[in-house]
Amino acid sequence: MKKYDKIVKNALGREVPTIINGVEMPPYKGVGKYIPDGRKHAPRIPSMANYPEDGNKLVASLKEALQKAGLKDGMTISTHHHFRNGDLLAVQIFDIAAELGVKDLVWFPSASFPCHEPLIKHMENGTIDHIEGSMNGPLGKFTSEGNMNGVGVLRSHGGRYQAVQDGEVQIDIAVIAAPTADEFGNAHGLEGDAACGLLGFALADSQYADNVIVATDNLVPFPCIPWQIQGNHVDYTVVMDKIGDANKIVSGTTRITKSPDRQLIAEMTAKFCDDAGMIKDGWSFQAGAGGTTLSVGNYFADIMRERNIKARFVRGGSNKYLVDMLEEGLTDYILDGQTFDLEGVRSMRENPGHVNTSPFTSYNYHAKGNFAQFVDVVVLGATEVDVNFNANVATHSDGYLLHGLGGWQNCLFSKTVILPIPLFRDRIPVVRDEVTTICGPGELIDVIVTERGIAINPRRTDLIEKLKDSPLPIKSIEELKDEAERICGKPAKPELDDEIIAAIKWVDGTVIDAVRKVKS
Amino acid sequence: MKKYDKIVKNALGREVPTIINGVEMPPYKGVGKYIPDGRKHAPRIPSMANYPEDGNKLVASLKEALQKAGLKDGMTISTHHHFRNGDLLAVQIFDIAAELGVKDLVWFPSASFPCHEPLIKHMENGTIDHIEGSMNGPLGKFTSEGNMNGVGVLRSHGGRYQAVQDGEVQIDIAVIAAPTADEFGNAHGLEGDAACGLLGFALADSQYADNVIVATDNLVPFPCIPWQIQGNHVDYTVVMDKIGDANKIVSGTTRITKSPDRQLIAEMTAKFCDDAGMIKDGWSFQAGAGGTTLSVGNYFADIMRERNIKARFVRGGSNKYLVDMLEEGLTDYILDGQTFDLEGVRSMRENPGHVNTSPFTSYNYHAKGNFAQFVDVVVLGATEVDVNFNANVATHSDGYLLHGLGGWQNCLFSKTVILPIPLFRDRIPVVRDEVTTICGPGELIDVIVTERGIAINPRRTDLIEKLKDSPLPIKSIEELKDEAERICGKPAKPELDDEIIAAIKWVDGTVIDAVRKVKS
Repeated sequence: MKKYDKIVKNALGREVPTIINGVEMPPYKGVGKYIPDGRKHAPRIPSMANYPEDGNKLVASLKEALQKAGLKDGMTISTHHHFRNGDLLAVQIFDIAAELGVKDLVWFPSASFPCHEPLIKHMENGTIDHIEGSMNGPLGKFTSEGNMNGVGVLRSHGGRYQAVQDGEVQIDIAVIAAPTADEFGNAHGLEGDAACGLLGFALADSQYADNVIVATDNLVPFPCIPWQIQGNHVDYTVVMDKIGDANKIVSGTTRITKSPDRQLIAEMTAKFCDDAGMIKDGWSFQAGAGGTTLSVGNYFADIMRERNIKARFVRGGSNKYLVDMLEEGLTDYILDGQTFDLEGVRSMRENPGHVNTSPFTSYNYHAKGNFAQFVDVVVLGATEVDVNFNANVATHSDGYLLHGLGGWQNCLFSKTVILPIPLFRDRIPVVRDEVTTICGPGELIDVIVTERGIAINPRRTDLIEKLKDSPLPIKSIEELKDEAERICGKPAKPELDDEIIAAIKWVDGTVIDAVRKVKS
Repeated sequence: MKKYDKIVKNALGREVPTIINGVEMPPYKGVGKYIPDGRKHAPRIPSMANYPEDGNKLVASLKEALQKAGLKDGMTISTHHHFRNGDLLAVQIFDIAAELGVKDLVWFPSASFPCHEPLIKHMENGTIDHIEGSMNGPLGKFTSEGNMNGVGVLRSHGGRYQAVQDGEVQIDIAVIAAPTADEFGNAHGLEGDAACGLLGFALADSQYADNVIVATDNLVPFPCIPWQIQGNHVDYTVVMDKIGDANKIVSGTTRITKSPDRQLIAEMTAKFCDDAGMIKDGWSFQAGAGGTTLSVGNYFADIMRERNIKARFVRGGSNKYLVDMLEEGLTDYILDGQTFDLEGVRSMRENPGHVNTSPFTSYNYHAKGNFAQFVDVVVLGATEVDVNFNANVATHSDGYLLHGLGGWQNCLFSKTVILPIPLFRDRIPVVRDEVTTICGPGELIDVIVTERGIAINPRRTDLIEKLKDSPLPIKSIEELKDEAERICGKPAKPELDDEIIAAIKWVDGTVIDAVRKVKS
């Protein structure tokens, strides 16, 4: 089988394969232009008659569970990333598979982290064929250098739900690390030594996978309440010594920036929103997990406090900053997709206003809407932005694939999308003629805030009008680009081979761009 | 189209059709004997691109919503019964359909009540072809007398979820009455003038119907939390003056019996459980909504209070008696499927230990288990029981179809099933050679408690052993039957035609019995 085939030029002019790892995938056609014509994936109908009469699905070990689930060559194995860099299961799963001599597996995580570096040896020894999911850090480098057998497929959190729902990815075995569970397989993330908050990223896996394994280090008597994962979907349960390290859900990107330049960008972003009249009673916002975006959130809180107004909801990834807002009464709700620190876990456990959500409710484009569209302002990061406002979050300007998409693409459907970014990083322009990889189409990106000026997408005539008397340094995106090039020089193109090592999916399952091998 | 066809004798020796209203349905094969070989129903893949960009799905009226949903001849329209006798929507829906001249609809409620009597005129005028759901009271009489065009299909709550999940019933339009909702269609039953507690009976409808309409009389700003129904499944929302009368969720069957005979039966039932060693710390039970079974629950509470022990969970239909137990600390949880009074609604709103459940988690047989199997003791009613412990809940001994199945069949999978029943009613024996309609197979029914003796199913040698020194009047079921006949005489068979007017489905989708027309 060819790794990929049938390259065409998509609606953004990017050359993308339409057959990837043997699966047909339509090219990107434009926002809202690709309308699916099929039916959702139909899982096999199980019968209670085939499950233990007493509901006790415990088996002795993860290995036994994988064997009972019929682990064999070529299967797709999924895991979730609520432990972020503290995940302990993915490596064990593929160690077991290697020990059993199983080959050509597809790993389908909801995200990967540096802790997954040991999987490189399983890509080298043939246990893993390829990864469909983010390839961060070491896995990204390995992939970018052309060392992965199959083609990587990157999807947003919503796109991952969509792909599973629509049957594009059929999960053979889902392994769900559960901080608390009962023997039936009901599970949640709120309590236990490994409490990580919620398990929403494993929802699609539980609903659609052929075999579902719940692994826990905190078994409680039935019923395990709330059942964020419902045991009615679960085949086997396993008790292990430790399923994850919750302390490692905190990462460097969840601390507020101390850089004066980035502080300035954050302040300008908040000021922009204020001048545009967005910060009002009952509004909503999402600020991502980066240091700058966290800082923006703090400015928002200051403004709300000063005016004595509150948000209807804020969207998490939650952290202590959002929890403080909720507890202070600055918002009615946190709608949370993943907890980024242990304060988030505590709050979700204690506070009914701290709501656990899933990629289905928040982000799935192949639904009758999703709640990203209700967010007034979303503040996101990017590695590059081009003069058409197209943006990149997956690769660096040297072509290396180093980041996942997370919920970034999905958030672009919010009412106003703002990217606060430095004009250049390490003397490499961030605003440029063309991005290395298009992850999001410019028509959905409204505002670029840099330390040297703010560009409003010309499509947003309403914002241009509202900001016309603002003292903020509003410029055109071309002006920003020129300024970056004046300081740093025209950026060099990355040196890339023709070979495609990964595909970037759009929220509707189409291929928005392809990532090419870095020349060695 | 013939109403039904291909009659065969099923595993219980009952003659049942295997084609009903044009749909093939396997005959009952025995408990756990029919293993499905297909895939679940795959709903069409929607795209957010086809829904309002701002998430506002409000349309002006129920009529407009039905028209936008494409209401036309032959469609299947579903509603839920959380308002019980206070439902206000079903009649309006079919009034609108009649006004629009639409014919041959199938009404697929989760249950029907006397308030639905006005639908008889729509069965007479051809708007409704037939009902798939319980046919209580006046609708049952109408059907039993052969006046409904199609064949009624009765399913348990779990069987209804199973039929929708498996694609046996494809809902064209689901109308969900929601005490609180937002414009996106997120909805719950906890607040508002019509607060009824939860909306679990509409879950399958929201997940699988082609078109979903949420009607509310309490619109709140997004997000409507908790989203018991997720707006991501919803097509249209409608604001109406009044969607239901929550006061009417209380029905006569939710008051504790005052009859001395029934009190005696209740006391004997509790004593039986105690002598069998079932009432211990961490146990669980479900007592139905009948006066006798409620009384049993009260005895259970007394025993737990006296011994200073508590239940891990009690299963509701909740009411003030269960709420008192939860608030008194006699149970960790109420796992609730429907609230039977307003105290239940209040408790579910306020108490995290009062958990809202759905027919998927509690009862769906075509899942990887369900939680009915975790209930230690379930106490249920019956209209008739035969010497093989087969039981009837749908028809009376005169052949009239007057009750729905509710969760009765699903509860039979609990660890011990006890039917506290009078030995006779109005001088008609309840324990008899043969029941008019088999709704549950005897192998799942463990104990019959009557005012004149208790019969243990011979299969439960463990219970027979445990009760061997009990002072309770343990008898054989034949002895009970003989005693009933000594007092009342041999019961007459009901006078029935050959014509089948309704089918009784088993939890796995097979046909366990057929109900025949009453001779006029």
